Amino acid sequence: MSAPPQPASFAATAAFRRLSELARRPHDLTAPGGFSPARIAQMRAGACELDVLYAAQRVSPDIMAALADLAREMGAVERFREMVQGAVINRIEGHPSENRRVLHCAARHLFDELPDRPEARLPADAVAEARKEAARLARFLEGVDRGTVGNARGEPFTEMINVGIGGSDLGPRALYVALQPWRKDGRRVHFVSNVDPDDPAHVLREAHLERTLVNVVSKSGSTLETRTDETLLRHAYVRAGLDPSVHFVCVTSPGSPLDASAQYREKFHTFDYVGGRYSATSAVGGVSLGFGLGWPAFEEFLRGAREMDLASQDLNLETNLPLLLALLGVWNRNFLGLETLAVIPYSQALSRFVAHLQQLDMESNGKSVTRAGQPVQSGTGPVVWGEPGTNSQHAFFQLLHQGPGVVPCEFLGFRESQYGEDLEVDGTTSQHKLLANLLAQVIALATGKPDANPNRRFPGNRPSTVILGQRLTPRVLGRLLALYENKVAYQGFLWGINSFDQEGVELGKVVAKRVLPLLTSGAAPAPSGAPESIETALLRAARILPR
Amino acid sequence: MSAPPQPASFAATAAFRRLSELARRPHDLTAPGGFSPARIAQMRAGACELDVLYAAQRVSPDIMAALADLAREMGAVERFREMVQGAVINRIEGHPSENRRVLHCAARHLFDELPDRPEARLPADAVAEARKEAARLARFLEGVDRGTVGNARGEPFTEMINVGIGGSDLGPRALYVALQPWRKDGRRVHFVSNVDPDDPAHVLREAHLERTLVNVVSKSGSTLETRTDETLLRHAYVRAGLDPSVHFVCVTSPGSPLDASAQYREKFHTFDYVGGRYSATSAVGGVSLGFGLGWPAFEEFLRGAREMDLASQDLNLETNLPLLLALLGVWNRNFLGLETLAVIPYSQALSRFVAHLQQLDMESNGKSVTRAGQPVQSGTGPVVWGEPGTNSQHAFFQLLHQGPGVVPCEFLGFRESQYGEDLEVDGTTSQHKLLANLLAQVIALATGKPDANPNRRFPGNRPSTVILGQRLTPRVLGRLLALYENKVAYQGFLWGINSFDQEGVELGKVVAKRVLPLLTSGAAPAPSGAPESIETALLRAARILPR
Repeated sequence: MSAPPQPASFAATAAFRRLSELARRPHDLTAPGGFSPARIAQMRAGACELDVLYAAQRVSPDIMAALADLAREMGAVERFREMVQGAVINRIEGHPSENRRVLHCAARHLFDELPDRPEARLPADAVAEARKEAARLARFLEGVDRGTVGNARGEPFTEMINVGIGGSDLGPRALYVALQPWRKDGRRVHFVSNVDPDDPAHVLREAHLERTLVNVVSKSGSTLETRTDETLLRHAYVRAGLDPSVHFVCVTSPGSPLDASAQYREKFHTFDYVGGRYSATSAVGGVSLGFGLGWPAFEEFLRGAREMDLASQDLNLETNLPLLLALLGVWNRNFLGLETLAVIPYSQALSRFVAHLQQLDMESNGKSVTRAGQPVQSGTGPVVWGEPGTNSQHAFFQLLHQGPGVVPCEFLGFRESQYGEDLEVDGTTSQHKLLANLLAQVIALATGKPDANPNRRFPGNRPSTVILGQRLTPRVLGRLLALYENKVAYQGFLWGINSFDQEGVELGKVVAKRVLPLLTSGAAPAPSGAPESIETALLRAARILPR
Repeated sequence: MSAPPQPASFAATAAFRRLSELARRPHDLTAPGGFSPARIAQMRAGACELDVLYAAQRVSPDIMAALADLAREMGAVERFREMVQGAVINRIEGHPSENRRVLHCAARHLFDELPDRPEARLPADAVAEARKEAARLARFLEGVDRGTVGNARGEPFTEMINVGIGGSDLGPRALYVALQPWRKDGRRVHFVSNVDPDDPAHVLREAHLERTLVNVVSKSGSTLETRTDETLLRHAYVRAGLDPSVHFVCVTSPGSPLDASAQYREKFHTFDYVGGRYSATSAVGGVSLGFGLGWPAFEEFLRGAREMDLASQDLNLETNLPLLLALLGVWNRNFLGLETLAVIPYSQALSRFVAHLQQLDMESNGKSVTRAGQPVQSGTGPVVWGEPGTNSQHAFFQLLHQGPGVVPCEFLGFRESQYGEDLEVDGTTSQHKLLANLLAQVIALATGKPDANPNRRFPGNRPSTVILGQRLTPRVLGRLLALYENKVAYQGFLWGINSFDQEGVELGKVVAKRVLPLLTSGAAPAPSGAPESIETALLRAARILPR
């Protein structure tokens, strides 16, 4: 399938003009009846057993209608279906760009009972590759479980070190932390990501190398940090008298330098049509999560993601949760002028999930150029940040409630805990207290409170959304991950940008290559008369080179 | 000492007007010579072996002079000295408020060789209390080391569970993570903070209770989360046939409910003049850090903080780093209109340090009312967020380089790694690569890059500061922590706000108390005719109560 037609321009749509008018008087949550029981009962949506409550956003039925018009004018759902069908949407018209399909959704198309919708079928080649890789991984993990895949002494592997950075680290790490109750007995996964030598040095103190598999994850096979950390780990294995070829596996693209190497016990594949930050459901997440949690838990995680992918193609905002969240975000970002988004999971298990969402969102939509190669006419991706509640209530919520600026919030929560180990203290369980706090924040932010003491006054009218599930299982986590992946993609479709490249990370790499040799050879003074470079001046000012 | 006179109004100063004029044409880093070697050599400051490079901020000598005038007009250094001397600065004039002194600096005044400066002496009572608590803690830790403080079978304690939230969690946790190379052999500290029951449930699977001390940290002695988690842990001890009174210690204020309890083996004190988020150098940080790292490492950490406290009283911006950083932040926030601040440590050890700074800064300065009880006339504390480099280069740096908005950055780094275990790969060590990347980001953000391809264009002119130390030791970490504590206090003095209360967290607690009983009794329908409350409506919409 070739590239689809260029979309309309976001700021030139009729809906944009209408929304700009409506934004002069956004809904006031503090007005009489502005946050009423009737409103709360009405403004909700749901799919895949996730409930979304958005009565505490500053939207009215008029505004919601105009947002739905915006989605229609921008052809948002059609764009999503084009993506699923394999259109080459990772491109910038008229300029050199990656020119790729965007098919991370294929990675979770493993279930015959969850077939494609007739409007959008995933390309057969990508589905076949995903299923082949999944089957290979399941077989490999079975070997690990049975002990047929073991160390040189025939002992089973109990630990894994995952070596990767960015998309090869944040997603797998966040998901592993989120699913600890599903961890296989005696299994443990460590993560090494940073080129900082203290990162592998610390993990080397924690891991038992003779029982550890090392999983090197690099889509390109040439990532500086990963290559460097891998070399450090290989040296540690050799020093320990262990044969790296027994312990090292990798995940990479077919044909990459890693793929060409004979140094790996097993190689798993990810593909050029799966972006790093969207790769948690591919082998990139699968090897470490499958090792730590077992294949069945990982498969359930994929099932959840697949279910949300299918729901993400609905035209109806009441069941298309990613599109709904995307539109509410556009309202806050482009029409209320709010530049950040706090995601607050009321779930300690999701303590690293926001770091993954931060990457997913900001690397995808921190863009200033449309797919047509034009400057954007309005704001794009917000700064996404957050920490778990209730912890964050005791940290930065002061600013959310009483700071001069407004930060919209997305609260995530679950009706039941993961472990189910709870206790009544003062008549309520911890889970009750957790949920009460989540909902209390929604109310407090929305309604505020007058007070004669100006320092105890709460202005209110601060928007938030609640996303609620029953219990954070692998399947629910898969739904939640796909919800956010698809939300980010939808916002990109609405803004008319390419959410799948990352040209903004390239300049830093180029400059680092100029600085790096100066660290070993740069101590020599510049030839007389030659001006000192910015790079050398910085190194001297930093006293890394002598002044 | 009574309350000092009210400061001048920030927005009414002559310097504010001057800076507002200068902000019409802020320094352009992309102009010819705008980021020159000479500028880089000149725009630096240093104290306590920390170097600060600020040539990549959008400031000129004129702007720096006006910022220094602003500090003088607001009496910033005098305010800091008043704080140190025990003035009652935690107050709002004319309204009920905490009315307390602010004396966390006393917690690190343990060193006769680092006496007070004559201009500002810490009150004798606070110093005496700090030294007494430090001596008690050192003795207790000596008992743990020697095994005289042991479990019921006389075995030594090897683990600790720290139970606390907010200031009783984020600081100690971040610092413990940062100083892993100093961890005592065989010792380990776990942290429980969230009221989410999965938080203690997970830690209970990791800890070996019979060899574990539980440290309950609550300044007020009545924090909901801490009390609840403590109760869960006590039940676990009883279930395991262990006597909690042998295993539980606490840190609290004299006279609190915890302090009155007979259930603790040992009680350590923090004081009403030490705010939670400023309490890492008190017993709040001392018990867990001292247990995990040993007293000598904790003492070195305190020594570093004390050194920075003394340097923080300089009138000269070239050596008063907290004031310098505060002023640069004010320039970005109030005159360039930048609403967030990214703190990026190029140090995996500081992976949780930013979460602590986030609390420290946002809870202190996320305020809209001056100490005189008036609405602020200009922005106050920014949204502070960040993750370690180089990881974050592969995550959200796309937005920093090419997003439509501008995010000022503070980069932290060290010339040497902690472990000193490194390897040359392709001719350079990992530490070289780490430093090269840090400085490369400064250059790339500042200078940008033109390109015929709009998607590969970098606008540049994006400000950053570098803070560089030699090696992240306990002493250097103490300096860094006090640098930020004092920066936050200085920004509060500049804005004329009270950085030491947190009234904005109260409303959520009040509303949670309304919601909580509904979770167990609220399923009953409202009496016929009675309107449903917002709280009940939310619980039904969330399907926590039946619809």
